Amino acid sequence: MPDTVLPDDWDARAKRHSFFGFTDLPSIAERGTVVLTRGEGPYVIDTEGRRYLDANSGLWNMIAGFDHPELIATAQAQYARFPGYHAFFGRMADTTVELSETLAEVAPFEDAKVFYTNSGSEANDTMVKMLWFLHAAEGRPQARKILTRGNAYHGVTVVSASMTGKPYNSVFGLPLPGFIHLTCPHFWREGRDGESEAAFTARLAAELEEVIAREGADTIAGFFAEPVQGAGGVIPPSEGYFDAILPVLRAHGIPVIADEVITGFGRTGELWGCESYGFVPDAIISSKALTAGFFPMGAVILGPELSDRMSRAVDAIEEFPHGFTASGHPVGCAIALKAIELVRGGLLDDVRRLTPRFEAGLAKLAAHPHIGEWRGRGLMGALEAVKDKATKTPWDSHLSVSERIANTCTDHGLICRPLGQSIVLCPPFIMTDAQMDEMFDKLGGALDEVFAGLA
Amino acid sequence: MPDTVLPDDWDARAKRHSFFGFTDLPSIAERGTVVLTRGEGPYVIDTEGRRYLDANSGLWNMIAGFDHPELIATAQAQYARFPGYHAFFGRMADTTVELSETLAEVAPFEDAKVFYTNSGSEANDTMVKMLWFLHAAEGRPQARKILTRGNAYHGVTVVSASMTGKPYNSVFGLPLPGFIHLTCPHFWREGRDGESEAAFTARLAAELEEVIAREGADTIAGFFAEPVQGAGGVIPPSEGYFDAILPVLRAHGIPVIADEVITGFGRTGELWGCESYGFVPDAIISSKALTAGFFPMGAVILGPELSDRMSRAVDAIEEFPHGFTASGHPVGCAIALKAIELVRGGLLDDVRRLTPRFEAGLAKLAAHPHIGEWRGRGLMGALEAVKDKATKTPWDSHLSVSERIANTCTDHGLICRPLGQSIVLCPPFIMTDAQMDEMFDKLGGALDEVFAGLA
Repeated sequence: MPDTVLPDDWDARAKRHSFFGFTDLPSIAERGTVVLTRGEGPYVIDTEGRRYLDANSGLWNMIAGFDHPELIATAQAQYARFPGYHAFFGRMADTTVELSETLAEVAPFEDAKVFYTNSGSEANDTMVKMLWFLHAAEGRPQARKILTRGNAYHGVTVVSASMTGKPYNSVFGLPLPGFIHLTCPHFWREGRDGESEAAFTARLAAELEEVIAREGADTIAGFFAEPVQGAGGVIPPSEGYFDAILPVLRAHGIPVIADEVITGFGRTGELWGCESYGFVPDAIISSKALTAGFFPMGAVILGPELSDRMSRAVDAIEEFPHGFTASGHPVGCAIALKAIELVRGGLLDDVRRLTPRFEAGLAKLAAHPHIGEWRGRGLMGALEAVKDKATKTPWDSHLSVSERIANTCTDHGLICRPLGQSIVLCPPFIMTDAQMDEMFDKLGGALDEVFAGLA
Repeated sequence: MPDTVLPDDWDARAKRHSFFGFTDLPSIAERGTVVLTRGEGPYVIDTEGRRYLDANSGLWNMIAGFDHPELIATAQAQYARFPGYHAFFGRMADTTVELSETLAEVAPFEDAKVFYTNSGSEANDTMVKMLWFLHAAEGRPQARKILTRGNAYHGVTVVSASMTGKPYNSVFGLPLPGFIHLTCPHFWREGRDGESEAAFTARLAAELEEVIAREGADTIAGFFAEPVQGAGGVIPPSEGYFDAILPVLRAHGIPVIADEVITGFGRTGELWGCESYGFVPDAIISSKALTAGFFPMGAVILGPELSDRMSRAVDAIEEFPHGFTASGHPVGCAIALKAIELVRGGLLDDVRRLTPRFEAGLAKLAAHPHIGEWRGRGLMGALEAVKDKATKTPWDSHLSVSERIANTCTDHGLICRPLGQSIVLCPPFIMTDAQMDEMFDKLGGALDEVFAGLA
């Protein structure tokens, strides 16, 4: 690293003092960083003036794009009125009260109580603490094990990373003991030769029953699931999955938590992902689209049964000793109120209107001989690259196929996300038809270019 | 709870859907919540039009008060320009790059690398993951134990709560195994009869040596300390504490992490709390004043040795699999740049100018027969209530003395914080002399009123 860098050498400046996370270091060593300076609709513009159509919505979160005037105006007005407070000691901002009312209204529960965090990671971590507290208060201190699934993504705190079913967490010595990962409900990849989708689903329900019997139902604190797995590679559950597993969990009294960090607020074509799959969880973990990416915020939304049980348990000790400094920040709450208003006032309709075009675009690219599967729900989708379509054989990992595809897209002004050997698309809800066509045209060109180079 | 509540009944509305954290439930059952709607300098105003001088700076964080025009203008301008992005995949906002440069410049290191989070909890949790990763990568996978101190406060994720040395975390079954709490360096409370402060400090250094010998130095991942303990009750270390313990830690190669979430950016009268105590840690955990409370943000600032070791370890696996969606949010970074500019451009001078008046006010109230000690550093201070001053005997806990004092202050338009049997003050740096006098006048009146009622 040189001792001095030029003010307009943003790449050198970015590399000098950044400790990069979730970044392929060989890619940035070779290609450099991308330093962004402004947004226009679904596009972001870098310091060199290059425009990129962001098919990721940032990180699944900027559902209204990068310059939505109503969100900007709301944030600006709230900063002028009351730019910061906490929610401890029985004090809170008025916008915090209003957002809790709105979340209780839109949640798929008859009634709800809300606890705010700054991220989905913190919300999942908080929910685990709540469950540990609740079970101990009700006389089951041994009920601490957490059930999740392979390819689940629940965050990056030590506990939420332990819930995450990805092998990369082994570099931290995670998961911690007691975090149990069931089979990922991805029929295309996990189904056995000759197994029907119905038989696969039944096998996963049987596995759940076996794990509960093996571990002891009274040692299990809760089950967490994304309605559609997101950072695992956009994996909708196999047909009938939730209908098959929920009765098993209910029979054993195990709380069911829907991690709706990605699916919440319209992504799957319903307000909540659980509505897309016809189930009602005991609590919802929310973040990301909650503020349309304009503010860091997460929320634990407790349904009526957990609210009542938690409230009784907390009343007995007079104070729940948990909370984040910026929990229920007045600006974040004002922004979330506006974001929810926008989703209900039109953005959810946009998702429904765009979904057929989105699915058609994915299906068309999936005809490629090196795309093994397209999958998705609503405006989240993935194309999985394969070396051999018939045998579903992946490419050698040292070829970094999905990174090559994503980097080629970037060269052509399209940001999409490599995840394993898949390319993930989760466009902002405000995309026009023409922008969606641009997205698929550029991705299709990149697929042709990369696969031709590998042939 | 009634089925419907009136729109102007903010207390009923606040209670209806809030799951309260760090809130004394009997107090709000009896007195109601306080719903705030705007700020003016160091004052906050509730929905009934009542004004409160906030001697807490919100939660230690709103150092520039509740309506600082430059911070508001900065937030508004950044929302208009680029209202959200992440820092994954080698992409990030320009303000993120600029903030990392500024943090590297102001940190007490020759060079630094920065990793962003959304809170101090996440930053401590991240630092633990970094240490676990680093030790394993360097061939010491068994080095996972974390040393902290009694009365330490490091946050509320499962791991940062495990680092926190407060008994209330037992309701969650925490701390996790491997989180070891050394003796709190509070001479007035922890010193033995006849023990000098120097002997007390030497005893704590000997305890550290013994714990390391007992546990095995090669099993310890790191030592975390707040330069002045904050939420433990504003506890400056005993005389010579850091000078005594740091050589022990260095001799065993144990990384030293300064949790500067409260002390960073001027609170103690220097830019960093570690500067007030003459030591340089291996890494700094920052949050709160970093954005003057205007945005949820935390940062891990790695000094040169940890930066180099971490970078080597990460290069070998090509990607550090960790990061939060809003890590390095462009608006948070723009606000932090302005907040740091304000601290360096005058607010730090304000702390130094106000400190003698603050200390004199604390010392005067400490003359009260039911105040056992005043303690503090810079603009953070505490008064500890006692039943018997000579024997330091606390009040019966069921009397909730500090809550009574804080509630009486609230009735008189002053917000201060009960912590154990102490009352904590941490005023915004923008307070005038007259506002500081108002703070002490109101607190003094409340002390008289409450102690008279207990006599």
